[in-house]
Parts: sequence; C-alpha cells; structure tokens
Amino acid sequence: MDIEALRRDTPGCANRVHLNHAGAGLLSRRTLAAVTGHLELEAAIGGYEAAWQQAEQVQAGYTNLARLLGGRADEVALFDSSTRAWNAAFYALSFRPGDRILTGRAEYGSNVLAYLQVARRTGAEVVVVPDDASGQLDTAALAGLIDERTRLVGVTHVPTSGGLVNPAAEIGRITRAAGVPFLLDATQSVGQFPVDVAEIGCDMLTGTGRKFLRGPRGTGFLWVRTGALEYLDPCVAEIQSADWDGKRGFSWKPGAQRFESWEKSHSNVLGLNAAVEQALELGLDRIGERASALGARLREGLRAVPGVSVHDLGPEPCAIVTCKVAGTAAEDVAAALRRQHINVTTTVPEHTQFDTEHRGVHPLVRLSPHYVNTEAELDLAVRAVAELASAAS
Amino acid sequence: MDIEALRRDTPGCANRVHLNHAGAGLLSRRTLAAVTGHLELEAAIGGYEAAWQQAEQVQAGYTNLARLLGGRADEVALFDSSTRAWNAAFYALSFRPGDRILTGRAEYGSNVLAYLQVARRTGAEVVVVPDDASGQLDTAALAGLIDERTRLVGVTHVPTSGGLVNPAAEIGRITRAAGVPFLLDATQSVGQFPVDVAEIGCDMLTGTGRKFLRGPRGTGFLWVRTGALEYLDPCVAEIQSADWDGKRGFSWKPGAQRFESWEKSHSNVLGLNAAVEQALELGLDRIGERASALGARLREGLRAVPGVSVHDLGPEPCAIVTCKVAGTAAEDVAAALRRQHINVTTTVPEHTQFDTEHRGVHPLVRLSPHYVNTEAELDLAVRAVAELASAAS
Repeated sequence: MDIEALRRDTPGCANRVHLNHAGAGLLSRRTLAAVTGHLELEAAIGGYEAAWQQAEQVQAGYTNLARLLGGRADEVALFDSSTRAWNAAFYALSFRPGDRILTGRAEYGSNVLAYLQVARRTGAEVVVVPDDASGQLDTAALAGLIDERTRLVGVTHVPTSGGLVNPAAEIGRITRAAGVPFLLDATQSVGQFPVDVAEIGCDMLTGTGRKFLRGPRGTGFLWVRTGALEYLDPCVAEIQSADWDGKRGFSWKPGAQRFESWEKSHSNVLGLNAAVEQALELGLDRIGERASALGARLREGLRAVPGVSVHDLGPEPCAIVTCKVAGTAAEDVAAALRRQHINVTTTVPEHTQFDTEHRGVHPLVRLSPHYVNTEAELDLAVRAVAELASAAS
Repeated sequence: MDIEALRRDTPGCANRVHLNHAGAGLLSRRTLAAVTGHLELEAAIGGYEAAWQQAEQVQAGYTNLARLLGGRADEVALFDSSTRAWNAAFYALSFRPGDRILTGRAEYGSNVLAYLQVARRTGAEVVVVPDDASGQLDTAALAGLIDERTRLVGVTHVPTSGGLVNPAAEIGRITRAAGVPFLLDATQSVGQFPVDVAEIGCDMLTGTGRKFLRGPRGTGFLWVRTGALEYLDPCVAEIQSADWDGKRGFSWKPGAQRFESWEKSHSNVLGLNAAVEQALELGLDRIGERASALGARLREGLRAVPGVSVHDLGPEPCAIVTCKVAGTAAEDVAAALRRQHINVTTTVPEHTQFDTEHRGVHPLVRLSPHYVNTEAELDLAVRAVAELASAAS
C-alpha cells in the first residue's frame, strides 16, 4: 500500500492525527466525491430522477458488499445504521418463555438493551457466556451452555470497548453443529480485517459504513443467509419489504429486501459503495495486516509508559487500543489529546454493560488507528499520553 | 415571495421543469450547502468530531421542526424516512383480537401493509372509512364507526395518489372526543401548506424532509404528543432510546427520543434543518397559497385538454395533480414528458391499495408543482400533455 498516496487522498490526514476509526473513519476524497456528487446531481435534476440515473451504481452497493462479506447480493439489505440493521434481524426472531439468548461480555450496548427488552416482553432468558483466560468469549463454555432452549447466539465480533476479537469462526462451528441461529455484530470488524460469512458460519451479520470501512455516516447493512429467512419474520411491513396480494394480504419480497425501507439516502449509499470498492481494491488482508500492526505498535508504546495501563482483551487484539492514565480521568486525557488535534474518544460504561459488570474499568481512553495512519502519528500520540501521565504522577 | 430569486437559488430550476415535488422537491443551494458543507467538515476533521462541533445546529433541527409543526422540540424524533418514523409510532401501539384500526381510502401503501401485518399478527381488524361525495374521508361515517373497539385512527393527510387533502382537523375533533389515538401521515402535506398539530388535534404525526419541504433524501420525522407516550411502547430498545439501569433492566429516554436511533447522517439532519428554516422564513401560509394556486392552474389547464381526464378528489385539492391521457399509458406519458425535461411520475396501484380497490384508476400521471415553479412552466407542461393527447386521438 502506498500510504502517502492514500493519505493525500484523505483530507483529514492533513488536519488531525485521527485515532478514532472505531468512532467514524476518515473519508477518502473519492468517497466524499461520490456522496457530494450525487447530492449535486439531485439538486441539478431532482432526487428521484438522480436515483434513476444512478440505479446501477446503487445496485453495485449491494454487489460490492456481498463480495466484501462473501455472500450474495440478494442476501444484503441496506440501512441507515448498523443498529437498525441488527434490529431488523434480531426483532425478526420469535421467543417464548424459557427460550435462551446466549451472548458474550463484549456485547454492544444497544444489542444488550434489545435482549433485555425482548426478555421482559417474552419471558426469554439472557445468558452471558463467560470469557476464557485470554478474555475472549469462552467457546468451551458456549458449547456447554448451548442446548435445546437456545434460540439465538448473538455475539459482537469486536467490541466498542477495546481491542478484543471474538473467535467468530469457532462460535460458528458450535452454532452450526447445534442448529442454532448465530447473529454476528461485525460493526467494528468489517473493513478492519477480512470478515467472511462462509468462513465464520454465521446466519446474520451486521455492519456499518462509517467506521473501518471509511464510508459516510448514516449507513449500515445486514447480510442474512437465505436459509435463515425461513425462521425470520420481519417486524415491520412496507412497500419495499412486502407485496400486496390485491386483497387484504401480502407476501414478503424475495431475499434480504424484506428487511429494507423504500426510502434511503442514495448519496450515502453511493458513498458506502465507493468506500467498499476502495477496501476491495486495497485488499482486506493487507488492510488487516497493517491495521493490526499499527494497533500493536500503539499498544506496546502505551504499555511502556509509566502510569499508563492497557486494557485490551483476547490473544490477538486488533486496531482498537484502550488505556488508562493513573490519576487522570479518561475524559480529561481524551480532551487534552483533542486539543493537540489527536482524535480519540472514551469508552462508555453504559454502552458495554456486561463488560462493565465484569471488569468495571470503563471509561477508558480509546485510540483506534487504521491503515491511513503513520507510525510517526502513533509515536506522537504515545508521547502526548506520556506527557499527561508524567504531569499527573 | 421573490420567485425569480428563489429559482436562482435552486440549481434544478435551470435544468428541469420539476413537477415532482411529491416525489422529491428541488434542493436550494443553501440546503445543498448545509449537507455538503458538513460532509466536507467530516472529511476534514472526522465524523464524530464534526458532529460535536455542529451539535447546536443539529439540535436546531428539532427546535425548527417543532416550530414548523406547532409542537415542542422534545416531542420530535428524527429518522431516515417518514415510513420509518410512522413505523416507530404505529408499531409502538398494542392491539388485541377484535381491536379496530380505522383508516381511509387514501391511506399510503406502506401504512396499509403495516395494518395488514398487525391485523394478521394480533387479530385486530382494519376498517376502511368511506369517502364523502367530494371524495375526502367521510367524517360523519368516521364518527359513526368510532367506538370502544377502536384502538387507532390512522389517516394519510394528503395521499401519494392525488390532490386530496383529508379533513385532518375534523378528524382530530372526533378522535379527541372519543379518546382514540390519531396517527396522521403528513408526508405529502408538511412543507406544502401549514400543518399545526394543536389545530389538528392529532397525537402522532409523521413527515419527510425530501418532498414539499425541499430537504435532502433520507430524512423523516415523528412528532408525538407527550401524553401519548403513556400508551406507546417503543418496539425496539437501543442506547439512544433507553437507559440501562445498571442491572438487567432499562427505562425509556424522556420524550420522543425513545423512538430514535443513535447513529444518523448528521449532514442530512443539517440539510433538513436548513430546509425547514427556509420554509419558516418564507412562511407556510404564503407557500401554501402559491402551491395551491399553481396546482389549481395546472389542474384547470389539463382539464381543458381534449382527451385528458383529471382525477383529484376532495373539495379543495392541493398541489398534487393526477391525470390520464386517453389512449396512452400513464408511464408512456410520463416518459415522453421526461424526455422534454419535464419531471413527472406516475401513481402506483400497489402503493395506494384501498384507493385502487375503490376507484381502479391507477396508474395516473402525477404532476406536483411547488412554489418555485412558474406559471409559464405549468403552461408548458399542459401544452406538452395536449400534444401527446392530440397525437393519441
């Protein structure tokens, strides 16, 4: 990868040390132009008229996402966020009293709230699978817990709260053997490293455009295995998702379209497509190698600073790095770094409830580089944290 | 209104005779700049960082929508479409066998599919209130039908399928007297003429940014009366809508926020806000007068053409005009007009099911001017239709 060329094509690289790709990645000029170009076309000829003209490019969004994930285009549905995509899948499952949802400690905050709501509503039970010694979901424990009561295994691939990468493919082997639906929240992993639905063996996978894919905000997607449509009943019906039967009934549209809404921001879809194209061109293997190497360098740099502790779990953490500076609140560290134009954020205890229950370490400072960052930027961030740590000691 | 100045501020006016505001209105330069400007800021400094910087303007989106609708800012929730907003309200209601949903023949296709789904799921019954002699919802019939079984009155203010304006305020008087929730789909009315929730007396109202408000695609909103929150149970829970209680429970966020999703396209929200600001500055009374006058002129012009029939219902139709050319399919008429750069569309029988059942006139050619159109443009469209009609006769 020609990092300098990629950085020249990324306006934000000139202004910020952007270590917040787990929040929202930096747009490339090409992706930005895909979005603004379509908005200008809408202004020039009309919003519907522009959509008709760009229909093939919009369809390419589905095809390219399918290529990225290893699925089929008709198994992809688009949304304005990964949470909305995840909800479309999760709330299409039915639960009865005594049914069990197995999840992990790293589960994302919105998913946890959805589990709690459905548990309250239906009498289903939420069971948190413990971690193994490395801090990842304990697959042996999962295999022991999965039984005829288990209606869903819902796992967050990479949490919002740290560098953990859950063993998705091992989980998939267990769920397939047990015949239990597996919903993988890949919001933080798609775009960061290769994520292949066939290799993982999940039944539903959700993601976002805006993070490691570097797409626009307000984009999300669901991939759903065709066979899973048999047990999924979409929770809402509308003209995009269902066909009127001419009387007082309807049938679902084919494939994943049954989860979609008719109206969408076509400019954002085209931006998402541009970002996916770019990721495919660069290659997810290469992207993943570099992101992981940058994460490791940043983590080691921070770990070496006196007064700084690093809190990422799992045997091979990814490009999300979390740390604490002794004596300084995480939000104050983040604010001080931002004043130096180093974009970082903090983890939110309420957005990672089971991890908060278990570890009680949040909020942490979260630094999330991606392949467009340079080693020099990471070293600069480490020095900035070291200065704060030294001042606090 | 200085129409020429408004047209100069609207790039599309130079390229098209845009008579598709019922599809998507033409963006003003100011609204376009609000969207693209924020996207450029996101590219320059990061997506979260840009949102923090523009937080006040995002909040203004709620305040200005509340001003537009006559409600309070905390009663407004934002979505990526009016259908998503409508679903958030409708699916938050609970129905039991024998409960009744009263609606009208003009009800929008997606709403009808949602009614049919919930009827199938719960045993509730969908009752279509007949029209009066003018073709609008018969309020006397509604008053006769409403009873203790009625769990919801759901009405489309202005249909997608013609110029009808349903008597929303009269409906509101009936529902308030009966103590029945009233959900008004105002997708085609907000931005076209004054729509005031207090005057109408509805409990929930939904709309879109992209049509007569001239905002970006991918925007929608729900206004919900504070008192209605008592009987509404949001169908999904996530970090934007609910607060974790620290154990295994949660409570809803205050106000309409409980219906929202955390992630959004901030650029589209800022564009929506710019469009609402512009509508407020121009004044909905003046906008409504001009839109209605243009609709009437266009309708009269078409009605006078031999071989052309006009199909708008109600005593005072609005700026949506529907017609048929004898001997030519509606889609062929629309395509011929589009080749002359006159943007029109056609109605879809499946998107207005009860109207299709009753009248059987769809598809129709749909022409929907707005205040930025000129009288000369309308006359040009009438001449173009007249030529097609003459060629077909």
